[in-house]
Amino acid sequence: MSLYRTFDSADLRIWLSTQITLSTQLGGKPEEWSIKEVSDGNLNSVFLVHGLDSSLCCKQALPHVRVAPDWPMPLERALYEARYMRATEAAVTGLAPKLFHYDADLFLLVMECLSPHTVLRSALIADQVTPGFSETIGQYVAQTVHTTGWTTRPFEEGSRLLADFAGNTALTRITVDLILNDPYRVCTRNPEPEPALLSAVEALRTDRPLHAAISRLQNIFLTCRQALLHGDLHTGSIMLHERDVRVIDGEFATMGPIGFDCGLYLGNLALHACAAPQKMPAMEHEMRVFWAAFAEQFQTLVSQGGGDVGGLLEDDAARLTMVQDMLLGILRDTAGFAGLEIIRRTIGFAQVADYSLCPDDAARTTARKRALEIGRTLIMSAEAIESPDALFALLCPSPATGAPSLT
Amino acid sequence: MSLYRTFDSADLRIWLSTQITLSTQLGGKPEEWSIKEVSDGNLNSVFLVHGLDSSLCCKQALPHVRVAPDWPMPLERALYEARYMRATEAAVTGLAPKLFHYDADLFLLVMECLSPHTVLRSALIADQVTPGFSETIGQYVAQTVHTTGWTTRPFEEGSRLLADFAGNTALTRITVDLILNDPYRVCTRNPEPEPALLSAVEALRTDRPLHAAISRLQNIFLTCRQALLHGDLHTGSIMLHERDVRVIDGEFATMGPIGFDCGLYLGNLALHACAAPQKMPAMEHEMRVFWAAFAEQFQTLVSQGGGDVGGLLEDDAARLTMVQDMLLGILRDTAGFAGLEIIRRTIGFAQVADYSLCPDDAARTTARKRALEIGRTLIMSAEAIESPDALFALLCPSPATGAPSLT
Repeated sequence: MSLYRTFDSADLRIWLSTQITLSTQLGGKPEEWSIKEVSDGNLNSVFLVHGLDSSLCCKQALPHVRVAPDWPMPLERALYEARYMRATEAAVTGLAPKLFHYDADLFLLVMECLSPHTVLRSALIADQVTPGFSETIGQYVAQTVHTTGWTTRPFEEGSRLLADFAGNTALTRITVDLILNDPYRVCTRNPEPEPALLSAVEALRTDRPLHAAISRLQNIFLTCRQALLHGDLHTGSIMLHERDVRVIDGEFATMGPIGFDCGLYLGNLALHACAAPQKMPAMEHEMRVFWAAFAEQFQTLVSQGGGDVGGLLEDDAARLTMVQDMLLGILRDTAGFAGLEIIRRTIGFAQVADYSLCPDDAARTTARKRALEIGRTLIMSAEAIESPDALFALLCPSPATGAPSLT
Repeated sequence: MSLYRTFDSADLRIWLSTQITLSTQLGGKPEEWSIKEVSDGNLNSVFLVHGLDSSLCCKQALPHVRVAPDWPMPLERALYEARYMRATEAAVTGLAPKLFHYDADLFLLVMECLSPHTVLRSALIADQVTPGFSETIGQYVAQTVHTTGWTTRPFEEGSRLLADFAGNTALTRITVDLILNDPYRVCTRNPEPEPALLSAVEALRTDRPLHAAISRLQNIFLTCRQALLHGDLHTGSIMLHERDVRVIDGEFATMGPIGFDCGLYLGNLALHACAAPQKMPAMEHEMRVFWAAFAEQFQTLVSQGGGDVGGLLEDDAARLTMVQDMLLGILRDTAGFAGLEIIRRTIGFAQVADYSLCPDDAARTTARKRALEIGRTLIMSAEAIESPDALFALLCPSPATGAPSLT
């Protein structure tokens, strides 16, 4: 018999009072704890618990999409989030919340409470960010993919990760459908496009060169198992307070192409710039900060060697060349996946709140059309990109000239 | 307590007599069965059992390398061979022996007895093959990778295969060490090279451009999880009798790059041609037959669609373009892995018996030097190959001109 039940605040208080380590950590008596539900994402219940000595964040998987109760969603995603946090925790101490406990029956994670942090997307919309926050995200991606890839560890470790995360198919199916397919086909999950966007949406559904380029990215996503990805690294999966930046919500974790994590993050910065064009310079700055931090850290870490890939390379120059070749491949994948994310978050399921910044309908339509153009150009041009500058030029085209075309 | 024990013929007879289905299938009384040990490979015990009605082949994993008892080897490889046969059996009926039973305690496979079949490598050495046998191998590779890849099945099936085979690390470690690393470094597993080859072997150990190219192939082998590979598709893993050709010994199975299976097979044909130069035209014919059968079947099968990769492509021309792009990638990987196999089987652990065809030491040295040159050229030129003809020209260079160089 399953022990799972969906918790409300009262259930959680009773359960926490039976957990000696956690209740000691909170401090005080259970009736003195403040428990507040703050569920915000699409998939889970989240509670913040404040005791006399400390606080905790409790996240429980729901058996359906929170915002669409008729869309069932296996509970096991909580297990994969716990596995992801454990697989990466040593590499990202201070860059992600600490996981204190995972309850396999309740599909419940108990982790560090991030307070007074806010979600990055909300902070961006409210214009309350400290510039340079993307440096942490670049370091985070470099650290996680380094600690789970093939160049610095015996391949047996990566094989174990392949086995541990291959079963996370329910959430990978969301990625495959919502990012890699749905925006380019008729599908009941797609929201009805606003009339002014209809022709642009229809054009994406019949754009054969685009579909061919997307097929290549679909193949990369499923075939290219470079490292353990966060898998959903958008600006809603990041919390920050001043210079303390943390990545949360690793339930989409899967072994995959490193450019997928990079692309989702940069794509969401580009979406914000589309919604608020006056912030494009600030977003381009964040993109550059992200890539510089990622590439530098990746190069430093991967050059250390110790894995089964590159073990024959004895001098620093040879290792550096290998790492730079890898970075160029990641850069190109980043462009393609950023393009897919931009289009998906503009016309597909789970669109971004950033467009609420547009002052009126006309401005929102203009912003979305621009996003679709940028997304398409990124997808079509990904393979030809030779430098980070070329990527930034596509992500943040000059407003005067519109989306540049490399095709 | 483990129920495993290493069987001799008497143990096997007693065990088979307790297996109702198998003993009925054999026919007659246990004392009437003929049981003959025919262990020949590096890793296992093999028995052929003939009853009154039918015959069986019984293969049991040993806890060490059969030919090197101080090299321990986990028994679980038998489980992976059984999983491989079950994952592919519907796709390769008649191209592989049928698996009747797998005993998880004894690490014992009971399968169709191939008689009067001989091992392809032995048949090649004895010059007793019917030309065109490679057509079956090309079909076999196309069928197995089609039934286990991402273009024709929902990705959940490939994910299950990733999970099922990621644990086969003991045998993948052999591949990583013996094929991808050892020949290019000082290593106790490497046999002492004959004096006339010493300088060539030492050159391979200090060849930095070669090491860089090999690092790229190491990365492809571990990262690029295109389909379920046989993983050890050399001419000793194939049995045939006239036109009945069967692939055996799938214990190295792993999700990996399709060109690895193709490359090992073509590399072993090239090795045979190096050892017996007069047979190069015959071997080139087999290479062409293999690739034509593989490519045609792959194209036919993959073009059918039905998977998560390429699902947006609605017209035949678009699917064909995608398949041809995939085939070019496979062709290039094939070249690289063929080169690695040729070098490994010439100077590394587990060298091929084909060199016994050389009439004297001088001829053998010439043959091996030639093989090393061909192998190196394949590895260095792999990325630049544009057509099957270019691959065949590297695998079977004109004796007058030696190994062509594209570098």
